Order: sequence, then C-alpha cells, then structure tokens
Amino acid sequence: MGDSGRGCDYHGGCRPGRQEGSALNARTHHSQAAPSPGLFQAFDSVRPRLALVERFISDQLDAGPAAVREAGAYVFEGGGKRIRPAILLLVGRMLGYDGDRDVRYGGVVEMIHTATLVHDDIIDHATLRRGRATANNRWGNQLTVLLGDWLYTRSMELALDVGDVDVMRVLSRATIQMIEGEILGLRLKGRSDVSRDEYLEISRRKTAELFAAACSIPALFAPELSRFRAPLDEFGRNLGTCFQIVDDLLDLTASQQRLGKPVFSDLREGTLTLPFILLLPRLERAERAMIEQVMADGTFNGASPEQLRELLDRHDVLAEVRAVAHEYGRRAVGALDALPAAPERDLLAAAPSLLIDRDY
Amino acid sequence: MGDSGRGCDYHGGCRPGRQEGSALNARTHHSQAAPSPGLFQAFDSVRPRLALVERFISDQLDAGPAAVREAGAYVFEGGGKRIRPAILLLVGRMLGYDGDRDVRYGGVVEMIHTATLVHDDIIDHATLRRGRATANNRWGNQLTVLLGDWLYTRSMELALDVGDVDVMRVLSRATIQMIEGEILGLRLKGRSDVSRDEYLEISRRKTAELFAAACSIPALFAPELSRFRAPLDEFGRNLGTCFQIVDDLLDLTASQQRLGKPVFSDLREGTLTLPFILLLPRLERAERAMIEQVMADGTFNGASPEQLRELLDRHDVLAEVRAVAHEYGRRAVGALDALPAAPERDLLAAAPSLLIDRDY
Repeated sequence: MGDSGRGCDYHGGCRPGRQEGSALNARTHHSQAAPSPGLFQAFDSVRPRLALVERFISDQLDAGPAAVREAGAYVFEGGGKRIRPAILLLVGRMLGYDGDRDVRYGGVVEMIHTATLVHDDIIDHATLRRGRATANNRWGNQLTVLLGDWLYTRSMELALDVGDVDVMRVLSRATIQMIEGEILGLRLKGRSDVSRDEYLEISRRKTAELFAAACSIPALFAPELSRFRAPLDEFGRNLGTCFQIVDDLLDLTASQQRLGKPVFSDLREGTLTLPFILLLPRLERAERAMIEQVMADGTFNGASPEQLRELLDRHDVLAEVRAVAHEYGRRAVGALDALPAAPERDLLAAAPSLLIDRDY
Repeated sequence: MGDSGRGCDYHGGCRPGRQEGSALNARTHHSQAAPSPGLFQAFDSVRPRLALVERFISDQLDAGPAAVREAGAYVFEGGGKRIRPAILLLVGRMLGYDGDRDVRYGGVVEMIHTATLVHDDIIDHATLRRGRATANNRWGNQLTVLLGDWLYTRSMELALDVGDVDVMRVLSRATIQMIEGEILGLRLKGRSDVSRDEYLEISRRKTAELFAAACSIPALFAPELSRFRAPLDEFGRNLGTCFQIVDDLLDLTASQQRLGKPVFSDLREGTLTLPFILLLPRLERAERAMIEQVMADGTFNGASPEQLRELLDRHDVLAEVRAVAHEYGRRAVGALDALPAAPERDLLAAAPSLLIDRDY
C-alpha cells in the first residue's frame, strides 16, 4: 500500500462504541451503549476468527477450578473491544497466515491484558469497570489476586503447550514491561511534577508493549515472515501509545455513563495523565493547588469536574493531547510501509483514526 | 543406598531453627531464634552454592525497578530456610551435575515460592510473617500485588533466557497447581466440614508440587539423567506434603515468638487444617460450636488457645497428624531407592525427619 492508501485511511471520524466495550462478545449480557461502528466494521473481516478467540478463552476458563470459571467468565463477559486479538488476527491475515495459532495467541494476549486489568482494579481499589462491579468488588481481593495469577500463568502455558519459545519470549518480555510500567506508575502516584517523558515511558510499558507483542507475534508463525517482525513491532508500539493517550483523554471528556466508570478517576487516584501534565505548568498557584487537592484527597472538594474541564478548555490542552495521539498514529501508519499490500493493511492503517475518534 | 542407610537416616530428633527461618541467609538482619541445627547441618554440603543462589536472586531484583529492589530485598532478607533451593542443589550433586543451572533454578523456585507468599499475605490480610511486618503491611496491597506478578513473570523468563523449555513446563505446571490450590483453599474457607482428602489435595497443590518441581528439575539437566525424573518427582511430592502437614501443625503448637506470626492463624482465618479435620467429628456439639466460632469471627472469643490445645490433646490428634506426616516422609524416602547412592542421597533421606522434628 502506498502513501495515498494510507492517507485516505488516516482520517477516521466515526463515533465508536463504549470504551473497551463488548460489541464483539456474543456472551455479553448488558450493553449500556450502542456498539462501536467504526471499530466494529474494521474488525468485520476477522469476526469469525474473533468468535473462535472467544471460544478459545472460554475453553481455558472451563478447564480451570470452579471459581476461575465463574469469576473469569464474568470478567471476560464484561466486554472489552478485543482490540489486541483483532489486530493480531488482522496482521496474521495480512501476512497470508492461514493456520490457527492466531486464534490461540489472540486469546493469550487478551488473557494477559485481562490479568493486568483485574490486578489493576485491586491496585486502584476500583469498584466499577465497563459499567459493572469490578471482580474485586464482587469476589473480594483474594480471589481476584488469584484469578490474575491464574490468567498470567495459564497464558504462558498456552504458548508452552505448542513449544513456541520465541512467542513466549515476546509475551514474557511484554508482561514484565507491563508490570514494571504499573510499578513505575505507582511510584509516581500523588506527584504533581510528573514529566511528559515519564508519562510516555509508563504508557509504553503499560500498554504499548502488549500491542507490539500482539502485532509482531504473527511474524513468528513462519520463518519467511520474520522480516516483518521489526516494522510490526514498531506499528504496534506506536498504535498502543496512541491508544493509551486517547484512553486517558476519555477519562476527562466522556460521561460516567459512556465510560462505565467514574470520570476523572485517574486524577482522583493521584495519577497525572498527559492533559494535566501539560496543564499544570500553565496554571496560577491557586489553580494548581485545586488540582493537587483533587489528587490528594480523591474527591472533587478541591475542584469540580466542571472547573477542571474549564481549566483544560481555557488552555486548549485537549487539542494538544489529541495532536500527540495523532503523531503516534502517524508513526504507526508509517511503519506499515514495510508490510505487504493487502486489504488488512488498509484496515490496520485506519486503526489509529478509529481509536482517536472514539468518544468513549 | 539400601534400606539400612535410609532406616538410619530416618529418625531425626534435632531441634531446628524457626519456621521458614533465615539461618541460611547471610543478608538477614534479625534473628529471633537460634539457627536450625538439623537442617543447617544437612545443607552444609551445598552452603557455598546456596550463597550463589542468594546472589542470583539479588542480581535479579537489582535489575528490576527501584520498588522491586527495595520491597524484594526486604521480602527475601526476611529469611526462609531456602529448603526448596537446598533440595534442588542436593539433588543436582547427587546426580553428579556440575554445571550452574542448579543455582539458576534454585533461585527460580525460591522466587516462585516467594511470589506465592506475598500474594498469600494479601489474601490472608496477614500483617506478620517470620516475625516482621508483611510486605502488604509495609508497602500496601498495590505494590505487593505487582511484586508477586513481577516475581512470577521474571521466574519464567529466567528459564526462557536459557531456552529450557522442559524446565519451563515443569515450573509453569507447578505454578498453576499452586494457584489452583490457593483457589480451592479459598473456596473452603469458613467451612467446618472439610475432608481429609480435600485437605491433602490442597496441600499437594499448594506446596508439594513445587517441591516435586524442585526435586525433578535437575533430572532435566542432561538426557542421561531423565530416568531419575519420576522417582525424584515422587520424592519431592511426598516430602512437600510432609512439610505442609508439619507447617500446619506448628501453627497450633509453636508460640507466636517462635513462629514469627500469631498462633492458630489458619483457624482464625477460617481454614481447617488436618488436626481440626480429625478433631471435629470427635467433639460434642457445644465444643464444635466453640471452634466454629473461632473460624467465624477470627478471634479467641469462642475458645482460647489453651482450650483449643486441651481439646486437641484430649483426643490425641497431634500424634495422629504426626503419624500422617511420617507416612509421607516414609514414601518420600522409599522413592530414593531408584536414585544413585551418594552422600547427598543420605541427606535427602534425612530431610523428612528433620522437617517433622523441627519445633517451630
């Protein structure tokens, strides 16, 4: 695909489904918002294989102890756009892969992602995710710690079962990066002097490395595909960073109903995301103190959501943050040049815009 | 080694160091009890290699984020008898192995063991372990969840780094079993009708499988050693069950000072161990209700430690439990018949007695 193809894909403009929503998950029982048309359509070509990924994950849970079956089914039924498996499947098709390891590793990356979510919710004392009670809220920290451990360990076993040592290396490296990203994030909690570089480093580790793994794993399915590994890694890392920036943005701009969790939750947990990192140095001391109070006591006593949004608007910070997301999106799309022209490449080239233009 | 050798090794009688004590850890800063002479001496022949295991673990922590270095060092300095690495090293020597993978996997099994401990302490809301504040008590659940995740994932990577797929299979299988054992244990919490079989199943998964892994891993170091894998697995699984039964016994018989944590903590957390499983059916209804109240409210309001001990004594339950531990010890020693005669085999044959006869 030439630049024109990419240029034409790289605009977006749709209004997709709820954040990490469940449009793709047939077993979902609730739906607080319409499905995400943009992402939904982009994934159309891999939908039958995404259904196999769902089945694969269910089969793993069903083979576990009763508590894993029950709490695991609840967590996976809670939705998620299945972005990581969808992208892995699209990459596999783009490379002409026609085996079934893409389904296995689509399931595995979603299981690893879910393991981090359930442990994160313990860490953040979160009570709501995707509009429902979190696993820790419903089953307690005890089972939730173990459910995460089980998902991590079973994920590694699933690569081991088929002897894919190279895939395991990619997965365990990404997992360590995610955990270390969380650890770094924890250390910065409550600090109002976090730098843009620190934020981007944490976003890379927490999110982008697993995207990079999801994208580059299909290049390990056959020796002749290995030349695509580096550009796929590059694509995924930039797409993942773009995704995380937008995710953090939605925490400020979407409504609680759309978001499925309380607004400004990052800030109230003491975590600065890019908009506030850009905003804080531009504020008067008294305004900074308002934000610091929200971070310190976790309530809106220091400043209401409306006041926070007014400050963000006045300094036009959100547009700047969107521009940063677009820059990562452009880098992602640029990396696709080295990949085979295929309909799936066009879909992958559209992914950054679709991610940026979702509004919850 | 013939039966006579084993018979002579299988008596014990020493009074070893504190439970999961720190006698072997040069970096330990505190010592609430004298070192464990029996175990201490048994491990003498591998002491220089145990020091390498300590170094190996420190090196891993030092390569992690600052929080892992700090909290990890604290947790590992907290002691532990290093039984799993010591046994792995002894088995390696017994088989004539003279490389250094035993040090790596000694470190790895201790890291996996420690990951389960830090997550267990979150699960049990424990505040004290080995006489010191638990990691969750000192750093909060957040970092402690991530420290456990880091240790699990890094452990797998350490096997992956050297391409040991067979060892990874053994380790991930043992880890899944441990996590599932914890999950099963959680489900039985608060239930006063737990059966002996359920207890033994959980003990096998929670503890014995990692012992089995530690013992059988050296048989994977060279193709000609693979014939020893099954008997080593059998030895480890029985030794681990023996160890767990004794560990649970010490929770009832040792003092808080010796134990480094509160007495009867299993019961007060709602977990029935073998002594109470044997005791409960023999009690009057009112006595059973006393025990059930301790389980239900986590205090000694239902029955004091003295009353509980009196009930255990009156029905002579502890001797029966010790006999069960001895039975597993005998099975462990029996499995050694298939292994090469060597001084290390005699030490391994002595291990069950040393574990049973420790008094805290």
